[in-house]
Amino acid sequence: MSYSNLEFHEVRLSEEGVLHVEINRPDRLNAMNEPCWTEYGKIFAQAARDSDVRAVVVNGVGRAFCAGLDVVDSAQGFAERQQMDTARAGLKLGEHIRDFQLALHQAHLINKPVIGVAHGPCIGLGIDLLTTFDVRFAAKDALFSVREIVIGMAADIGTLQRLPKIVGSLGWVKDVCFSGRNFQVDEAIAQGFIQRAYDSRDDAVNAALEYAKELCKFSPVAMWGTKRSINYAIDHTTLLKER
Amino acid sequence: MSYSNLEFHEVRLSEEGVLHVEINRPDRLNAMNEPCWTEYGKIFAQAARDSDVRAVVVNGVGRAFCAGLDVVDSAQGFAERQQMDTARAGLKLGEHIRDFQLALHQAHLINKPVIGVAHGPCIGLGIDLLTTFDVRFAAKDALFSVREIVIGMAADIGTLQRLPKIVGSLGWVKDVCFSGRNFQVDEAIAQGFIQRAYDSRDDAVNAALEYAKELCKFSPVAMWGTKRSINYAIDHTTLLKER
Amino acid sequence: MSYSNLEFHEVRLSEEGVLHVEINRPDRLNAMNEPCWTEYGKIFAQAARDSDVRAVVVNGVGRAFCAGLDVVDSAQGFAERQQMDTARAGLKLGEHIRDFQLALHQAHLINKPVIGVAHGPCIGLGIDLLTTFDVRFAAKDALFSVREIVIGMAADIGTLQRLPKIVGSLGWVKDVCFSGRNFQVDEAIAQGFIQRAYDSRDDAVNAALEYAKELCKFSPVAMWGTKRSINYAIDHTTLLKER
Amino acid sequence: MSYSNLEFHEVRLSEEGVLHVEINRPDRLNAMNEPCWTEYGKIFAQAARDSDVRAVVVNGVGRAFCAGLDVVDSAQGFAERQQMDTARAGLKLGEHIRDFQLALHQAHLINKPVIGVAHGPCIGLGIDLLTTFDVRFAAKDALFSVREIVIGMAADIGTLQRLPKIVGSLGWVKDVCFSGRNFQVDEAIAQGFIQRAYDSRDDAVNAALEYAKELCKFSPVAMWGTKRSINYAIDHTTLLKER
Amino acid sequence: MSYSNLEFHEVRLSEEGVLHVEINRPDRLNAMNEPCWTEYGKIFAQAARDSDVRAVVVNGVGRAFCAGLDVVDSAQGFAERQQMDTARAGLKLGEHIRDFQLALHQAHLINKPVIGVAHGPCIGLGIDLLTTFDVRFAAKDALFSVREIVIGMAADIGTLQRLPKIVGSLGWVKDVCFSGRNFQVDEAIAQGFIQRAYDSRDDAVNAALEYAKELCKFSPVAMWGTKRSINYAIDHTTLLKER
Amino acid sequence: MSYSNLEFHEVRLSEEGVLHVEINRPDRLNAMNEPCWTEYGKIFAQAARDSDVRAVVVNGVGRAFCAGLDVVDSAQGFAERQQMDTARAGLKLGEHIRDFQLALHQAHLINKPVIGVAHGPCIGLGIDLLTTFDVRFAAKDALFSVREIVIGMAADIGTLQRLPKIVGSLGWVKDVCFSGRNFQVDEAIAQGFIQRAYDSRDDAVNAALEYAKELCKFSPVAMWGTKRSINYAIDHTTLLKER
Repeated sequence: MSYSNLEFHEVRLSEEGVLHVEINRPDRLNAMNEPCWTEYGKIFAQAARDSDVRAVVVNGVGRAFCAGLDVVDSAQGFAERQQMDTARAGLKLGEHIRDFQLALHQAHLINKPVIGVAHGPCIGLGIDLLTTFDVRFAAKDALFSVREIVIGMAADIGTLQRLPKIVGSLGWVKDVCFSGRNFQVDEAIAQGFIQRAYDSRDDAVNAALEYAKELCKFSPVAMWGTKRSINYAIDHTTLLKER
Repeated sequence: MSYSNLEFHEVRLSEEGVLHVEINRPDRLNAMNEPCWTEYGKIFAQAARDSDVRAVVVNGVGRAFCAGLDVVDSAQGFAERQQMDTARAGLKLGEHIRDFQLALHQAHLINKPVIGVAHGPCIGLGIDLLTTFDVRFAAKDALFSVREIVIGMAADIGTLQRLPKIVGSLGWVKDVCFSGRNFQVDEAIAQGFIQRAYDSRDDAVNAALEYAKELCKFSPVAMWGTKRSINYAIDHTTLLKER
Repeated sequence: MSYSNLEFHEVRLSEEGVLHVEINRPDRLNAMNEPCWTEYGKIFAQAARDSDVRAVVVNGVGRAFCAGLDVVDSAQGFAERQQMDTARAGLKLGEHIRDFQLALHQAHLINKPVIGVAHGPCIGLGIDLLTTFDVRFAAKDALFSVREIVIGMAADIGTLQRLPKIVGSLGWVKDVCFSGRNFQVDEAIAQGFIQRAYDSRDDAVNAALEYAKELCKFSPVAMWGTKRSINYAIDHTTLLKER
Repeated sequence: MSYSNLEFHEVRLSEEGVLHVEINRPDRLNAMNEPCWTEYGKIFAQAARDSDVRAVVVNGVGRAFCAGLDVVDSAQGFAERQQMDTARAGLKLGEHIRDFQLALHQAHLINKPVIGVAHGPCIGLGIDLLTTFDVRFAAKDALFSVREIVIGMAADIGTLQRLPKIVGSLGWVKDVCFSGRNFQVDEAIAQGFIQRAYDSRDDAVNAALEYAKELCKFSPVAMWGTKRSINYAIDHTTLLKER
Repeated sequence: MSYSNLEFHEVRLSEEGVLHVEINRPDRLNAMNEPCWTEYGKIFAQAARDSDVRAVVVNGVGRAFCAGLDVVDSAQGFAERQQMDTARAGLKLGEHIRDFQLALHQAHLINKPVIGVAHGPCIGLGIDLLTTFDVRFAAKDALFSVREIVIGMAADIGTLQRLPKIVGSLGWVKDVCFSGRNFQVDEAIAQGFIQRAYDSRDDAVNAALEYAKELCKFSPVAMWGTKRSINYAIDHTTLLKER
Repeated sequence: MSYSNLEFHEVRLSEEGVLHVEINRPDRLNAMNEPCWTEYGKIFAQAARDSDVRAVVVNGVGRAFCAGLDVVDSAQGFAERQQMDTARAGLKLGEHIRDFQLALHQAHLINKPVIGVAHGPCIGLGIDLLTTFDVRFAAKDALFSVREIVIGMAADIGTLQRLPKIVGSLGWVKDVCFSGRNFQVDEAIAQGFIQRAYDSRDDAVNAALEYAKELCKFSPVAMWGTKRSINYAIDHTTLLKER
């Protein structure tokens, strides 16, 4: 399979099987619009069926991992829905949000391990993305914020669904989601959100590629069984009944 | 709406929309009996429908946040049930416990953020209360204990249901619930139970009021969507199916 | 009841009610084969109905807590299944795994608190065992590894089902399960997997026995209600609906 | 307790313990507005705690059991919400619908058996009501219709939630809910919706009162256990795991 | 494997693979006490692992399929629990009921199809048993009654859990469970509880043996997959999410 | 949108909004292979986003509605998987089955009512298809069989998941799935599987088109809300908690 001719991403497959996906809209700080997240989702859908891919690393090109939603694009959809009656506009918006959620969710669904690398601004949609990865590395300059509340929205593209399931302290989750405040790598590590920190974006990306390369040595069947079992466990009743 | 004529609480609504609820039985260290928790539940039920309220802060008046259940009152209900056959007494007790759970649970259910402030003894029912809040601040003198096991009871007014869902370490939860041992603010912060500590009760209460005031600036619709989504996530299957 | 005539375990019941279960295959570093885990499961099944037992402590004899699965034994079952068609072999293997899971799961199901003590190598099955206990103590020499991935397997005897529910950071769980890397006591404590560390195996075992003895003083009915409620909470929808 | 001073219902308690609740707005064919269903919910809430009540019979006064929602009343709430922005109007409407659902749902929740009697027009809200009862009798003149679709609404006060769980054929449920068509007693009996038919409203009501009187002879504790277990079963995983 | 030396059952295995299990306490109308249902459960546990068994037929010897619980035996356990405090007696009773439920539930859990044959009195426990079978045949003289309510009990050995899931009309389920009334084969067929009726017990048993013999011709792997999938479906969310 | 250039289906959209989908492989009795069900799934995916479509009717061209799986095609995939090791072949087959299930499941997921028409042989996959529709009409010559067991398979493309949820009698479901026996329209109507019968295929198709045309008159928003709520109810806990 081929991962060329992409508009918003730069993608390379190493010979060991690491698919390196870089979000590549540096002039917009990797803010995403609909064509961008549609392409993003398709890369993962393709990789899911590509047995040459054994692990995935995701990071951003430029100054930021991802500074959020591309607001120009959203405004356009908003204007269109303004023309409709409330019920139809609601259904339309619901459909749009679900497509959006599904595109990002591919990283969670894919049958290979996914390592994400945070650096610079990781705002709003940037957090939605990070919560979909299996393991998260970060550069020391990473700045995190679940910013949606500040602009009158709920972080419903995935952060509110996933963040309470990937870190332990629900009070901390509510604190950062209610206040929209910034937090940095030290706090993110202490809370279990980030697994490892590095001095720079390049160091973090290289460490992630190296880590992913190691995972490629293991049985892809066992790896998929492991990821699937853990993902299942956090969301289902898995324990046998108590007497 | 009005929050006056209360017997066991002191309640004030700031112009920004912060409802300050103080449990006010200092001579009993804010231990609660049935009239007390009934009043407590009603304050939240009223606040839920009061669009002037945008955030809530809960703390205790006097030396303790809450030293537990008022045992005199419980003894009375116990005596009444002694007269009944076992099956009826069980149903009656179940109904009583459910009313009790529901009254405290209003802080979890209410459509606004709730900040709790712990100080001094937070024992038994004090922990049940704390687990219902969204974010927890504490004074350095706070002393916590899931004490029920020591008097031959299970902490079934909410602690056993909620504590495993709001902190990460299940081993720690079982340790404190099985042993009934005391723990202090440093440990509570390390485990993710308390979010921020202050030198005194007054400092902690003021910080909570200030924090709540900031939250009042955000859209109450977005805030409710955020709280509801997080609460839903910790208790439901929210992730889309893996392939 | 009697706990003598055991082949793979040494078991003593103190007068206070602490059942001390020691896995006793030191020459195999306490690796388990089917007769071993069958005996292990029966000890707990018996203890569950023995009202003289009020708490359980589990540790290993010799250099290791448990170094994993006894591969000789597995190889034998594997050879037998090789003779069958795929569908029957799959059903047979599924049945075998379920018996295995259930034997270990007795420590989770039993109606008394169980304290585990980790020391030396705690590899593969050793982690499966540790995740079934309520509270985990460790000696400083303990070395942990979810090793299954390295030999092309998924850790499906319980680690993948339980580890995501007993510590807070899902990223950390995936890191150790995807990479099979070693980790030590400090990291295990920071992640909430281990509750307390001691200088040596003997210190840790004595501390666990002492801790269990304290728990024996409490009402066994209240203790069972407490354990059951917590176990139920981590795996079910327990919170009343939000408005 | 007393059941007098009611505006929209006539309620009598027999000496055997049958609470006879008659919806009493015959001039509106027992269509309900908010004050009416609020009163209806309160009757059941009171009866739930009244140990003199051992069974309940519900029917309508006049020509119809219940011809639906009182549209004048709904129109008023609709006008009020028209003034609000979409998000607030949605939350307000959601709250209103939930209060409405909860009022009707009291018949399902109450700890005593409830027998409903259908006669004449049972339209829209009339079906919502009937689905909440435990056992349903009918007069031969009863005419049923899940009419909401015809006026551009979904039958979301309870019919869509409950009807699929109380009869066996999902195709039939969708047929009557998609088409809004009328159906009569013979069809309702064949589908398991109605349990027994009688020649007239009076015959059906008398049979229901007689049936309820028989139920009053049994242990109310066993009756409540029976109703609760059945209600739980239709909505939960109750079977032990297959091997 | 062998099915001889049984005290309360007569069991034969045909050469085609039909295990014919007859409850054999005709002088007690096949009422069961603890030794009886313990033996019953063991027969199924053994058959589950016996690959010579491909289908099971269950019926009763003598005038009745099963006339209920052996009350003498229950009275004894009751007397013992009278000596204990309420909490311990409750736990003890809960354990006893769970063992009882599990013994009967083996017919549901077993990895082979089970055909039951009802005849004569099928009262109380007789219904609990019938609900555990996959397919139910009956003789025309069968008389059914969920009789527990009449003696002040809830039918909690399985009827209340399973009956709502194996027939379509919840109103009918509540009618027969609330009133304890008798019903006969015609009604049982119309409600989907019984699949086929025959003139006599012998005819019904022979038809069941013949039917089971036909099932023995099919792949036991496919049969187990079929039974397991259906059992799973009635108790779980199996449908993919709606858009 | 356009529904032309299809290889295996004939599709017409009426001006009222009825999409008429005819499976068109009469020479294979409408048995489906992978290209066929892929096309089938795409028609529904397109129709889901086509606001001109307000209802869907599905039937078969020729002598049969659908005589099952195209075995030639399956054999090919089977041969390919024979080359792989068991684990990879299992994952590959699982992926294939899931794609297959999802294609058929589109009729359940789509946001419009779907009416199916059965005639002639409806075997194996034919039943899988029928269970996905909302309402089922049939011609008198329809012959049904859950035939999979006869060829050593489980009916896992949807029948086993859905049939227990769309008819009331679980014993009947197990009877037809365990025995693979034929059944006809009268039995299918009595069990609630088929809603209406007609003398011929043409009469049944015309009645379905007419019925669908009536549904097109209603609000598509209300229709979607109605279908979604019913589908949700059969698969989720929807009832508010009992006291």
